Amino acid sequence: MSTAVLKISCPDRKGIVAEVCQILADCSANIIDAQQHREELDEQFFMYVKFDCSELNCDRSILETRLKAKSELIGFNWSVSFKDEKKRLAIMVSKYDHCLYDLLLKHKYGELDVDIALILSNHPDLKATAEHFNVPYHHIPRNKDNREEADQAAVDLFQKEKVDFVAMARYMQILTPTLINAYPNKIINVHHGFLPAFKGAKPYHQAYTKGVKLIGSTSHYANEELDMGPIIDQVTVPVTHAHSAEDMVRAGRDMENSVLSNAVKAHASDRIIVYKGRTIIFD
Amino acid sequence: MSTAVLKISCPDRKGIVAEVCQILADCSANIIDAQQHREELDEQFFMYVKFDCSELNCDRSILETRLKAKSELIGFNWSVSFKDEKKRLAIMVSKYDHCLYDLLLKHKYGELDVDIALILSNHPDLKATAEHFNVPYHHIPRNKDNREEADQAAVDLFQKEKVDFVAMARYMQILTPTLINAYPNKIINVHHGFLPAFKGAKPYHQAYTKGVKLIGSTSHYANEELDMGPIIDQVTVPVTHAHSAEDMVRAGRDMENSVLSNAVKAHASDRIIVYKGRTIIFD
Amino acid sequence: MSTAVLKISCPDRKGIVAEVCQILADCSANIIDAQQHREELDEQFFMYVKFDCSELNCDRSILETRLKAKSELIGFNWSVSFKDEKKRLAIMVSKYDHCLYDLLLKHKYGELDVDIALILSNHPDLKATAEHFNVPYHHIPRNKDNREEADQAAVDLFQKEKVDFVAMARYMQILTPTLINAYPNKIINVHHGFLPAFKGAKPYHQAYTKGVKLIGSTSHYANEELDMGPIIDQVTVPVTHAHSAEDMVRAGRDMENSVLSNAVKAHASDRIIVYKGRTIIFD
Amino acid sequence: MSTAVLKISCPDRKGIVAEVCQILADCSANIIDAQQHREELDEQFFMYVKFDCSELNCDRSILETRLKAKSELIGFNWSVSFKDEKKRLAIMVSKYDHCLYDLLLKHKYGELDVDIALILSNHPDLKATAEHFNVPYHHIPRNKDNREEADQAAVDLFQKEKVDFVAMARYMQILTPTLINAYPNKIINVHHGFLPAFKGAKPYHQAYTKGVKLIGSTSHYANEELDMGPIIDQVTVPVTHAHSAEDMVRAGRDMENSVLSNAVKAHASDRIIVYKGRTIIFD
Repeated sequence: MSTAVLKISCPDRKGIVAEVCQILADCSANIIDAQQHREELDEQFFMYVKFDCSELNCDRSILETRLKAKSELIGFNWSVSFKDEKKRLAIMVSKYDHCLYDLLLKHKYGELDVDIALILSNHPDLKATAEHFNVPYHHIPRNKDNREEADQAAVDLFQKEKVDFVAMARYMQILTPTLINAYPNKIINVHHGFLPAFKGAKPYHQAYTKGVKLIGSTSHYANEELDMGPIIDQVTVPVTHAHSAEDMVRAGRDMENSVLSNAVKAHASDRIIVYKGRTIIFD
Repeated sequence: MSTAVLKISCPDRKGIVAEVCQILADCSANIIDAQQHREELDEQFFMYVKFDCSELNCDRSILETRLKAKSELIGFNWSVSFKDEKKRLAIMVSKYDHCLYDLLLKHKYGELDVDIALILSNHPDLKATAEHFNVPYHHIPRNKDNREEADQAAVDLFQKEKVDFVAMARYMQILTPTLINAYPNKIINVHHGFLPAFKGAKPYHQAYTKGVKLIGSTSHYANEELDMGPIIDQVTVPVTHAHSAEDMVRAGRDMENSVLSNAVKAHASDRIIVYKGRTIIFD
Repeated sequence: MSTAVLKISCPDRKGIVAEVCQILADCSANIIDAQQHREELDEQFFMYVKFDCSELNCDRSILETRLKAKSELIGFNWSVSFKDEKKRLAIMVSKYDHCLYDLLLKHKYGELDVDIALILSNHPDLKATAEHFNVPYHHIPRNKDNREEADQAAVDLFQKEKVDFVAMARYMQILTPTLINAYPNKIINVHHGFLPAFKGAKPYHQAYTKGVKLIGSTSHYANEELDMGPIIDQVTVPVTHAHSAEDMVRAGRDMENSVLSNAVKAHASDRIIVYKGRTIIFD
Repeated sequence: MSTAVLKISCPDRKGIVAEVCQILADCSANIIDAQQHREELDEQFFMYVKFDCSELNCDRSILETRLKAKSELIGFNWSVSFKDEKKRLAIMVSKYDHCLYDLLLKHKYGELDVDIALILSNHPDLKATAEHFNVPYHHIPRNKDNREEADQAAVDLFQKEKVDFVAMARYMQILTPTLINAYPNKIINVHHGFLPAFKGAKPYHQAYTKGVKLIGSTSHYANEELDMGPIIDQVTVPVTHAHSAEDMVRAGRDMENSVLSNAVKAHASDRIIVYKGRTIIFD
């Protein structure tokens, strides 16, 4: 079965589900899963439709033309993506490799519906890991004097390699607007702390000093405000007085793997809509 | 806002979502939430639609007539329920009161969208609790010699009081077919063990002897096979060697409250479809 | 079996475990459970010993005298408490009753090893609940003009009723130093947010706006800095975009019950030591 | 700091903690952590003591001689292990590699306090992974006709390589008594199901058919009864009607990694005592 995802958002109005589903029915698309959400405060409507497109009675472009015509008539935002046109992912790493291994292994097991276009690092250290998994490795050194140039080089590389979205697998660097604005809501970061509690550096040490009984990790889209983009996934695990800050770092690895790979999966399968700084995630 | 829920199930076919949504649109019903599920093995289709019915342009009966006509034409099972016609719940208890308090409190806080019709017990013990919450209390003694009569008396009482569904809040008795068959997939039981691991009596003692590191609770619809009806909700909590069987009983109370009240909420809001012994639960 | 708990803290030194255990052995006390903790940063030592005191070969006062002599000789802080001398708990409430019911029910089930001395409220509303459980109810009105007087009246009441520690079961008021300083590290508060993320008012609304994917609750000792005393327990539950702020309030109740009752249990059974603003909790 | 672990078990008697701690104090060992457990039913006593042995005033053998003498005098089982004498782990694999990667990575991060002696497989497939991590890889083919010989070859290999314990990282083969009896309570298996619910083959398919709302994984010591040895760790994750059996397999990988690596950590750090088919695990 070949599937596709249609996402719609617009001010709420009656009949929109029927009208959109009729377009799909007319093209002989079979709806497999559909979810709607209505944001109460703003009366905003969001819709996710996953459909079987293997027996379409027309070209995909015809379906898109019909959606476009309807959207202009009644007013809604829409996007459609076909599963057989996989998104291309770039993974950015520094020296920590746990999130990298996790993404590469989950990709190998068929859990991530993407092509891994490349690994980009500001260090040469993880080249052997990239080779072990047969993924191209690019090394662009980056320091406080060449951030702009390094990020522009990254943008150039990503565009050349047709990268659709980016996972910062513990990249440990603050991106410049050059890179962030080239991929708005398409760069996923993992923060090793339970946002918005502990922002910035050494969140586990902050957590230890405060004596918290839970620590967490957060994946989010990167935007210009440090560690404050739209949150995608969060996990916590219990800790006790007996956990040193180093123990928390250890406990954090599995959480970081989990929230980053969940975010990559959700983005890859087109299940996320960003609205007013929050994510709406269909499942 | 006044809302309603429409549930559909049928063999999967193209266009059904559009056709059903068109009926709603024609009646000026606004879809708030909708979920579909396709059971891969059987190619069976399930659909849940929650809609705003406060601005219907016709009688509710007209909407139902149109659904009936369409269902006869293209073949699907359907039911519609209106939130302002609350379901009436009977709570069955024995002597343990934790699940009873939990349901009465959650009802008081507005979390359970039901009218609590009555409490039925085989013991007089919990009458004061019923009175504290202003709920009618009925005492029907039950022992091994009068099970049939007691269950028939329960059925009579439930029908007189227009009971729609039943929560066995640790009733601790095995129901006869007389009662079970009068309310198929409408009697919710809570089992103080992680089914299907530990069936029958004293599951926590079985868990202790086995040395498990997790214990659980399960809510399910009661059917004629003891503790084997369709599962609705399950929870586990970690235990260690230091937990005695009595400690597990304590740890179990919160779990039992949780799985039973979750099941009552899901049933009350018409989010459950039973298919081949499994539950499909929309959320 | 009659049990007691001995807690020791001091700068770490060799042999202290043996010396302390020898005192217990000399009195014919049998150790049931013991835990030590060494705070790496400060080289501080903490010890918890639970022992069977039903076959002591001497008066309890003799045991205490020997501990005192040894502590003066080698330098350590110590306290001993006997389980049959139950702590007396005061519960402070406002109008929300879920934490109150939870504590009263868990006490009834034998899970809280305390005597509930009284319920104190700034409103008359929950008197019937207190009566249902046969607990004395005291109403001390409190507003912005009489905080000092009200808190002094509370202190007077607690001392008259020999209250050992206090649970603020959603009391919803900021205590004055008059009350806080009378019971240092003996007043337990529950904060309906995951500290230190969302301090102050309406944390669930803050969480909604931020778009978090987890919400939490925290129990902690009250001190003069609002919501910043030593943390005792924390819990989180997942939420999605579909949770309104009101839904989060609902989801929060079970968490608040859990973290508050866990804190009361830990304090009642003398398993907590506070050190430099953090809690060391033996289990 | 150099540390060691002393484990004691015996029928409960007064004074044993003091006597044992005195031996440690006499040797100038400093207790860092200690935990006791008393099994109520059998009046059996268990003790775990972690101590700093870097400033012992005598040879380690002297300490052991004193423990032996005392044990013969008052009767207890004991064992002592020194952290700088790392245990040697053999990892057994078949074709699935997720648990293998997880162990190799956690070892690399310093989370597993072992030396990885070798990887043994009945297939050649994972040789490249072993080489990537610089661990010796041994291939011993195994089929229904040569089980005995293959397991004897494994025992010979393990003894030659001074293997202390074994992790079956999804080895997918039933061991013969030849191998099991050579390493009693030293072979850790991971079962991809929540024992004792679903034993034997395809537990996720069993779980799907039953319609469970949680799936789990279990690590346990292997013994002659299939999947019934002493349980070490268990984890569950929620599933819904929308999870296919294949989805459950995916969800299971992280759980399997978690329970197996937790078991290896606990065994490696000498925190487990097996008693009557149950594990007592100090933390």
